[in-house]
Amino acid sequence: MSVRAGIIVTGTEVLSGIIRDANGPWLSEALRARGVVVTHIVVVGDRVEDLRSALDFLSDHDLVLTSGGLGPTADDLTADVVAEWAGAEMVHDAALEERIWAVVNRLRRRMPFEEEAMRAGARKQAFVPVGAAVLEPVGTAPGLLVSSSGPLVAVLPGPPRELQTMWEAAVSTSPLREVLESAGTLEQRILRFFPLPEPQIAATLRELDADALPLEITTCLRRGELEVATVFPPSSASAYAALEAGLRERHGDVLFSDDGATIDVVIARLLQGRTIATAESCTGGLMAGRLTDLAGSSAYVLGGLVVYSNEAKTALAGVPDALIAAHGAVSPEVATALSAGARSRLEADIGIGITGIAGPGGGSPEKPVGTVCISVSTATDAEERVVRLPGGRADVRDRTTTVTLHMLRALLLRA
Amino acid sequence: MSVRAGIIVTGTEVLSGIIRDANGPWLSEALRARGVVVTHIVVVGDRVEDLRSALDFLSDHDLVLTSGGLGPTADDLTADVVAEWAGAEMVHDAALEERIWAVVNRLRRRMPFEEEAMRAGARKQAFVPVGAAVLEPVGTAPGLLVSSSGPLVAVLPGPPRELQTMWEAAVSTSPLREVLESAGTLEQRILRFFPLPEPQIAATLRELDADALPLEITTCLRRGELEVATVFPPSSASAYAALEAGLRERHGDVLFSDDGATIDVVIARLLQGRTIATAESCTGGLMAGRLTDLAGSSAYVLGGLVVYSNEAKTALAGVPDALIAAHGAVSPEVATALSAGARSRLEADIGIGITGIAGPGGGSPEKPVGTVCISVSTATDAEERVVRLPGGRADVRDRTTTVTLHMLRALLLRA
Repeated sequence: MSVRAGIIVTGTEVLSGIIRDANGPWLSEALRARGVVVTHIVVVGDRVEDLRSALDFLSDHDLVLTSGGLGPTADDLTADVVAEWAGAEMVHDAALEERIWAVVNRLRRRMPFEEEAMRAGARKQAFVPVGAAVLEPVGTAPGLLVSSSGPLVAVLPGPPRELQTMWEAAVSTSPLREVLESAGTLEQRILRFFPLPEPQIAATLRELDADALPLEITTCLRRGELEVATVFPPSSASAYAALEAGLRERHGDVLFSDDGATIDVVIARLLQGRTIATAESCTGGLMAGRLTDLAGSSAYVLGGLVVYSNEAKTALAGVPDALIAAHGAVSPEVATALSAGARSRLEADIGIGITGIAGPGGGSPEKPVGTVCISVSTATDAEERVVRLPGGRADVRDRTTTVTLHMLRALLLRA
Repeated sequence: MSVRAGIIVTGTEVLSGIIRDANGPWLSEALRARGVVVTHIVVVGDRVEDLRSALDFLSDHDLVLTSGGLGPTADDLTADVVAEWAGAEMVHDAALEERIWAVVNRLRRRMPFEEEAMRAGARKQAFVPVGAAVLEPVGTAPGLLVSSSGPLVAVLPGPPRELQTMWEAAVSTSPLREVLESAGTLEQRILRFFPLPEPQIAATLRELDADALPLEITTCLRRGELEVATVFPPSSASAYAALEAGLRERHGDVLFSDDGATIDVVIARLLQGRTIATAESCTGGLMAGRLTDLAGSSAYVLGGLVVYSNEAKTALAGVPDALIAAHGAVSPEVATALSAGARSRLEADIGIGITGIAGPGGGSPEKPVGTVCISVSTATDAEERVVRLPGGRADVRDRTTTVTLHMLRALLLRA
């Protein structure tokens, strides 16, 4: 008995691309983990009729989640529209207004504000549909669980941190708890490969007759890595095991993760007990930034050098002037010198050296935009490559960090 | 006569949150810039019936754009479903297959592959609906313009770079050109403020009776900055001018951009003719990475130091051991020393020093997680602050770079 859900993300700023939605994907994953089938994420602007038509579109579902539109401003109208759609009147909850006001008052210290304006905002946020379950505010906006003749509608706030915290409270609140309990359980497994082209995985899946299996298999190329995500009910566990065995047999050599770990997490595990430092030019700090994304990275990241100018390459990383003059700043020789420089300047076990042409300018016929020289080294070993990466400036910079992490993995596996 | 459009983003990997969609917002902005009203972005997985219901949902629109599902694998089924929905048969285009094959062959050098598997992929991608206009592949997937009894459906590939390049070709291709020409023109203006709380802008908009104006106004808090985006037809230009004047009168002191420029672009303009360097701890390279996001940044960014360990703070940035011992690594004194160290080590005009506690560990009652000490200095002037930023590790790191850029702006404006 599958439970079907749809997600409505509100906000003209999201619809128009001014900000990128994080809530739809997050809620979708949260629902999937609880065995709920999500069919659609619908993004709508702050227009009453478009929000209403989105609710109509999902009216044959068991559950609809909304995010956003609960703030103090006039364009925040989700609660009103959902209430009207469900046929419930809005009533003022005085005790709720006082709780919201207490939160707003705590924020007073951070921002300049006019008391009257803030009070009006809190009052607006304290109107709730008759009969709805109120989810306590995490920021200033309360959430709602609104029953209708069709789906249960869970109304959640827009700021991702508020939404995520409130979701944890919502799942144990009636009537959402009952709906979620009626869903079965779905397993999800993710295998990650690098490098592996999409047509190759397509051919492999045809060979394994994957279409005929009781599994939902998705392949996707993400930051240059190929990901095979499979969702299935517990009864299909043996079918999944056979699929995974077939994939391992054919592509085990490029399989780098079978437990959901990203390459970043794989690297963090391999780096335990060692130290690393960077010297980067075209990535301008993003490589060090990526290595320090994970909590606990201070155990192995000592630091890094961002050597954007040639002078900095020499002064900070000790790359000889003559080497740059002989080979150019973007050259394998300079990458090698940078990784050695990172090691010696920071007294690290492992050094990363990156120099390349991120574009859009600076390319030449011999070294077009996208050419990046990478060196990952220890005192006794090294992985070195010159790659040509596709895409624009941001793509080249981001993809460089992915390629470098995979080179680092190769080095660490044989160390 | 307004043209209404909807966008359908396909892909189980997008719906499930494995990858984050960039195409919906991008297409939405591209359409808005051409005066088209976008009502919804609908994200669907790779299920035939869900894609079909999304097309039904948008069937009263003038235009529907789809992204994704054009690849060589079996779960790529957008072209088939759209063709069936529009009542057009799929036919093989032999010449198109050869053009696709030529592209695939060029990719051969980058990736290992089996010829047979790749050939099968190219053949699949060369099936097109009868009567559809074919948009030449940018990667390997051709796009399509499919007429139906309802909307015109523009079928575009999933990789953002391919989609964006193909869109430029599509807009001058019949019949899409005709649909776009029938749309009017909408103007968009964006004002950005920092710092300004949302309830305050809400109160101001009520004061200015903004609801009654013939303008579509959206306010949104983005990376800590408040953005007021307004869309209007040319006939409402004077209403907009009055609104903008009212906002300037009340909040001109915190208005930092009125021409669509982000703080990053504002800073890039102000930095012309000067040089800058960074020394950062908790942001781990993200500050330097952000300063070098923009093309041309090599004119003013000399480089930076990522000083994650205390040893690196001393060895690279010249922060005295005794200073760290006396005040702690996260202290205004160390931030000051870091910005001075960045300046002197890289011989830059301006130095940035950042040290803080990004979390989740490392906090204390006096210095909780989110405490960040920032110093931006020249030889003769400085902006210095200790801030407490909300959110998780990634939020604290990202918000730190935003706050720092605004401090940098203040310093540059009086220099």
